[in-house]
Amino acid sequence: MGERARVGVIGVGVMGMGVARNLLARGYPVRVRDIRREAEAEAATAGATVCSSPAALARECDVVISLVVDQDDTEAIVFGPDGLAGTLSAQAVYVMSSTVPPAYASELGARLAARGLSMLDAPVSGGPARARDGSLSMMISGTAAARERAEPLLADVAARRFVVGAAPGDGSKAKIVNNLLAGVNLAAAGEAMTLGMKLGLDPKLVFDIVSASSGASWIFADRMPRVLAGDYASRAATKILTKDLSIAAATAAAAGVPGPLAEAARDVFAAAVADGHGEADDAAVIRYYAARAGVKLPAKA
Amino acid sequence: MGERARVGVIGVGVMGMGVARNLLARGYPVRVRDIRREAEAEAATAGATVCSSPAALARECDVVISLVVDQDDTEAIVFGPDGLAGTLSAQAVYVMSSTVPPAYASELGARLAARGLSMLDAPVSGGPARARDGSLSMMISGTAAARERAEPLLADVAARRFVVGAAPGDGSKAKIVNNLLAGVNLAAAGEAMTLGMKLGLDPKLVFDIVSASSGASWIFADRMPRVLAGDYASRAATKILTKDLSIAAATAAAAGVPGPLAEAARDVFAAAVADGHGEADDAAVIRYYAARAGVKLPAKA
Repeated sequence: MGERARVGVIGVGVMGMGVARNLLARGYPVRVRDIRREAEAEAATAGATVCSSPAALARECDVVISLVVDQDDTEAIVFGPDGLAGTLSAQAVYVMSSTVPPAYASELGARLAARGLSMLDAPVSGGPARARDGSLSMMISGTAAARERAEPLLADVAARRFVVGAAPGDGSKAKIVNNLLAGVNLAAAGEAMTLGMKLGLDPKLVFDIVSASSGASWIFADRMPRVLAGDYASRAATKILTKDLSIAAATAAAAGVPGPLAEAARDVFAAAVADGHGEADDAAVIRYYAARAGVKLPAKA
Repeated sequence: MGERARVGVIGVGVMGMGVARNLLARGYPVRVRDIRREAEAEAATAGATVCSSPAALARECDVVISLVVDQDDTEAIVFGPDGLAGTLSAQAVYVMSSTVPPAYASELGARLAARGLSMLDAPVSGGPARARDGSLSMMISGTAAARERAEPLLADVAARRFVVGAAPGDGSKAKIVNNLLAGVNLAAAGEAMTLGMKLGLDPKLVFDIVSASSGASWIFADRMPRVLAGDYASRAATKILTKDLSIAAATAAAAGVPGPLAEAARDVFAAAVADGHGEADDAAVIRYYAARAGVKLPAKA
């Protein structure tokens, strides 16, 4: 399987679309499938071939990457009606890149292995811009044989690849650990920025100070400019990190690890979703704080 | 007041010692005062002149910087017996660089102004290494006259200076907003690293993955290598961020801003202090999690 592997991307939301566009730009033949027709149409315009189902897509692909929302969607595209498990070849590799509970990733890999099918548990991090240029980070677990077969393609998807383990499950563990931090750090960013504004400080100045100080974080730097610009057009919907934080808190509780920060952040995100911000960009978690504090956030520029 | 202003540093712990050494290296005559004789002796070896009290120090200085632990220590060195308020000249500037409640910083500035004395509320961020080379960030509030007089010296202390407001109080507001983030992000780092280890992941691999992903933060990058090396020798004691998080949570509560993340982090830090880690480096907050999760942290290399 060389650089021109036949690739399928299931789920062309902001992340999957970025991956598909990146692979198209690199000359791969790309097949796509999404439950939203408008997403499929956008991918087709970019040069991808739209397939009628996960099964139809998997029949014609050497590597299938899924970037759907959650465990339920993953289960549906793999083992649901017209799922990929029915047509994937034994020589192909299924790359599960959604964020799901580690126990589910482990179980899914075992169920596929029982049919003689190969799965890599390989969640990604970095956001749409890095998906588009192939510079995502990827946390990979699966057999050495599957990793070797998928490697040329994965190298074009994710410039920074980490082999976490030899079986599905470990990749998702690493992803949940990372997203616990992303979610907590983002909720804290909303809390801190709202506090600064309520105390009378200029939000742009707070942004500059934190960016130069010990409170800096990747997600603060990435999301707070959206708050300053009043721009909550979704690159990553609030409901996604809400789901990830629920998985993180539940995973910690099941493992007997205290999770007070994950739980507090999960509750803030869940309240933001309840307030109606679930489909907005996750920078909108700050609206949870601003509404309760009576703080007026910067308007759209 | 030019580059060779007579400078006094009150409180030569890790931060104050870094500032004093930096100024000595730049050729300033530096006077110091600390309640710990061994700290004064170390500063004297580095070339500083030890003074017998804050009052004795202030009598001979153009700029006095204090980097003591908290509000109580600040009150003692300013208005306590032999405090600096009794001898500071009207032409000198007192630079309050400890992390204290914004309301206290505001009040302290007003009390000094009532005596005709100038104070800048100017907390710093960045840690001992940046104190040593003059690359701290500094959040400054105070009158334009005081800022102008202190500027040549402050430029040598803190390469990144932010003017937050025209009266004491605003600098401390910005510092508390920053330290809310530093404290929450650090507690979350301990939570996430412990979860990863409990799930069977290699901590160095988790460190590398997070550093390349959306969970990255300044304090994760700065403190987690200490955990990997099993090195908890104190650069910043756990009790300090514990105090800062208490101020942040109380400030948020008083302002009517929800503070669930600050409160959760404050409680984790307080429990770590109760466990006996108050004087250890604040990377030791991870011991709170590890002890309860039954995770064995990396031993000292």
